[in-house]
Amino acid sequence: MRGEDELLAWLRTLPGTDLLGDDTARLPVRPGSVWIATTDSQIAGVHVPADLDPAVLARRLLELNLSDLAAAAAEPAYALAAVSAPAGFDHRRFLEALLTACAAAGVRLAGGDLARSPTLTLTLPLLGSRPEGAPAVGRGNARPGDVLWVGGTLGESGAGQRLVSRGARLRAGAGGGPEEGASEVYLPQDLDLPEAVREAARRAVRRHLAPRAQLELGAWLGGRERAAVMDLSDGLARDLPRLARESGAGAEVEAEALPTPEGFAALCAALGEDPLELALGGGEDYVLLFALPADELPPDRFECRPVGRVTKETELWLVKPGRREPWPDLGWDHLVLTGD
Amino acid sequence: MRGEDELLAWLRTLPGTDLLGDDTARLPVRPGSVWIATTDSQIAGVHVPADLDPAVLARRLLELNLSDLAAAAAEPAYALAAVSAPAGFDHRRFLEALLTACAAAGVRLAGGDLARSPTLTLTLPLLGSRPEGAPAVGRGNARPGDVLWVGGTLGESGAGQRLVSRGARLRAGAGGGPEEGASEVYLPQDLDLPEAVREAARRAVRRHLAPRAQLELGAWLGGRERAAVMDLSDGLARDLPRLARESGAGAEVEAEALPTPEGFAALCAALGEDPLELALGGGEDYVLLFALPADELPPDRFECRPVGRVTKETELWLVKPGRREPWPDLGWDHLVLTGD
Repeated sequence: MRGEDELLAWLRTLPGTDLLGDDTARLPVRPGSVWIATTDSQIAGVHVPADLDPAVLARRLLELNLSDLAAAAAEPAYALAAVSAPAGFDHRRFLEALLTACAAAGVRLAGGDLARSPTLTLTLPLLGSRPEGAPAVGRGNARPGDVLWVGGTLGESGAGQRLVSRGARLRAGAGGGPEEGASEVYLPQDLDLPEAVREAARRAVRRHLAPRAQLELGAWLGGRERAAVMDLSDGLARDLPRLARESGAGAEVEAEALPTPEGFAALCAALGEDPLELALGGGEDYVLLFALPADELPPDRFECRPVGRVTKETELWLVKPGRREPWPDLGWDHLVLTGD
Repeated sequence: MRGEDELLAWLRTLPGTDLLGDDTARLPVRPGSVWIATTDSQIAGVHVPADLDPAVLARRLLELNLSDLAAAAAEPAYALAAVSAPAGFDHRRFLEALLTACAAAGVRLAGGDLARSPTLTLTLPLLGSRPEGAPAVGRGNARPGDVLWVGGTLGESGAGQRLVSRGARLRAGAGGGPEEGASEVYLPQDLDLPEAVREAARRAVRRHLAPRAQLELGAWLGGRERAAVMDLSDGLARDLPRLARESGAGAEVEAEALPTPEGFAALCAALGEDPLELALGGGEDYVLLFALPADELPPDRFECRPVGRVTKETELWLVKPGRREPWPDLGWDHLVLTGD
């Protein structure tokens, strides 16, 4: 197999790699800005199947880190790529797709680390910038009376994850990009899905494997006087309590207001999943959850949906027609996996 | 086991965690500075044994990333910690030791990522600062006639690695820190080392598992008019060609000038290793390799040693009494491991 020096020499011939130098990179300053830092990892066999197309993996890794920057209203700037991979991993396909996706998002690859490992582990620290003096959009900004919003539908990624765990895959196109049109969803024959839900299933697989960070919505929220923002990575059931706790507040969410995609109920029925449980706890939605004063409305183009309100009492409630239930214990804990 | 939220709540009670917030951290600016970024990973079973004390691991992870900052003459500033670990990993011991070591090095922990993985994988992106306009100290700065220096002895870490692979360990003290005095080297009975080399063996294990980044030497080099600097992580045999190639030059190294620690020859004899091969290719020395104009000498306090010179012809030679040999093909390639 190819050695590290040869791979790096090849990498430096690609566009967008001018910052790549030695073990360190010197990051050009953005005057009048502060840096916002984040890092998320993707582990084959934990977050994604081990046989996932490296190009799909690269794009997903970038998007879910960008989603953290979106929640901080930060403008993407630099990435480092730490790639620990078993023998046979297609580094070139991964790195080419990563560079293409970085370029599209305004991110410059500024270094990284290559190592061999029995378990494919990809870590992508990102730096974004935010104007100095701009208000923070942290989780602790919600106030009683605020309206709670989500930036898109919930549960679809969770349904996609179930499909992927049963063999569904996304194949990137020739260009390596998993964009709509340039990539194709594969549904195994033995999935035995009714014809009527196959299109919703394809969308769910795409949503799970090729999420898109809501950077524009984040930037809009960053321009508000006060906004509490986070991205939904572990599911509303687990993430909303974090926002409420940081704000010293509680919340009421209308179960019937939770937005789900077209054909979701039928897809869940075919998968034997409960739609409400997936919407609350399926995880990896990668849309923004935010709280705004009641008189402030996000522009229609973002297709956000109000799902509840922030309350003074610090409990969380799920409101159903005629009754309210204690907040459900669902969602993804990164340290406690199924089977523990 | 404990969940993510509980672990993070505990972590935030420790000193030095005031930057830890949500999924992102806002990094205070250092006026007049640019940022230098780096990231290195440590993988259990690849770089270190899987049963290594998490406190030792934390310190080692920090030091080898600091070593990259030292080679860039950067002042340490911020770290992100991406921890992917199997069930049972002692996160608290790891994080406490990491925070203690960060505080000692002037690094503030600014976030990270926690995930479960069958393979313990630790990635520590670091940001350091360097005065805007200060000369770069990259690998490409060497010029024919420069003297080549190393910041300390070579091969000792490689010997330590052999001992660790045969069961030697470092146990951190009660404080969690693997500092000299606060930690103890364990040599297994069945190692069967002559009494005369046991002290050198203990030092080698400590050198391998508890390296110290040469930040002060790096800062001094950063103040020179021109210096080519890198840290020796993969062994002189593999790292020197990188410096020479980036500088468009060659090099001659005196085999007899390569500094090795006291008792090294006897230790190598006991281990069945060739001292010169370990000095050139043992790897993970984590001392600086640098080239300076011949009239510029590093201060005595750094205990640097001249090992050769930079040449105009682009070949590399290992000079032995009465002859010179082609540069040896030794050292560590991160993508090609033994057994491939």
